[in-house]
Amino acid sequence: MAHQNAALDSVFHALADPTRRAVIQRLGRGSATISELAQPFEMALPSFMKHIGVLERSRLIVSKKTGRVRTCLLNRDRLIAAERWFGKQHALWGSRYSNLDGLLAKLNGVENEG
Amino acid sequence: MAHQNAALDSVFHALADPTRRAVIQRLGRGSATISELAQPFEMALPSFMKHIGVLERSRLIVSKKTGRVRTCLLNRDRLIAAERWFGKQHALWGSRYSNLDGLLAKLNGVENEG
Repeated sequence: MAHQNAALDSVFHALADPTRRAVIQRLGRGSATISELAQPFEMALPSFMKHIGVLERSRLIVSKKTGRVRTCLLNRDRLIAAERWFGKQHALWGSRYSNLDGLLAKLNGVENEG
Repeated sequence: MAHQNAALDSVFHALADPTRRAVIQRLGRGSATISELAQPFEMALPSFMKHIGVLERSRLIVSKKTGRVRTCLLNRDRLIAAERWFGKQHALWGSRYSNLDGLLAKLNGVENEG
């Protein structure tokens, strides 16, 4: 459980950045070298590599160096594991809530009763 | 797009912590007061309130004070919007990847060819 929590911490942390999400999205189309991944971003390479490091530590991506070229791959299973957390929440909700507006109306009702 | 990115940044950041995920999970069962939410955690109230603040700023939860009691509600729609990001990735993948093991085998093959 603690292990699973740490995994979710690192995956959600990695996803909390638009550059990193764009890298994930790009790698969904197939493997890419660091140069290819960095190309769309107006960012110094050391800054970009920090993002790659966060993604690798979260195990959302893996990379492999061949000669002087580092190629990155998406670890799709890791992303699916994080997505599963949302599914678990749905299962807990059941049909309890329909929407926030309904909830707020209910809360206002409770307040008016009190 | 920038707005949507900022929303995802704050939601994923909020989810990157086990206490905050536990609060989300608890609120999935229904609204709760701050005292009820804090009860399972061995944490000083100011520290717990920081987590509540992060969740509120991400708009994953909303809270309302009635007298001296603050009640929190889950903003289910916000969680669903974040979940949708995963769905978009699936759509991009198509049937390109089956699993990481396959990818690594492929990458090793590429290396052996080079």
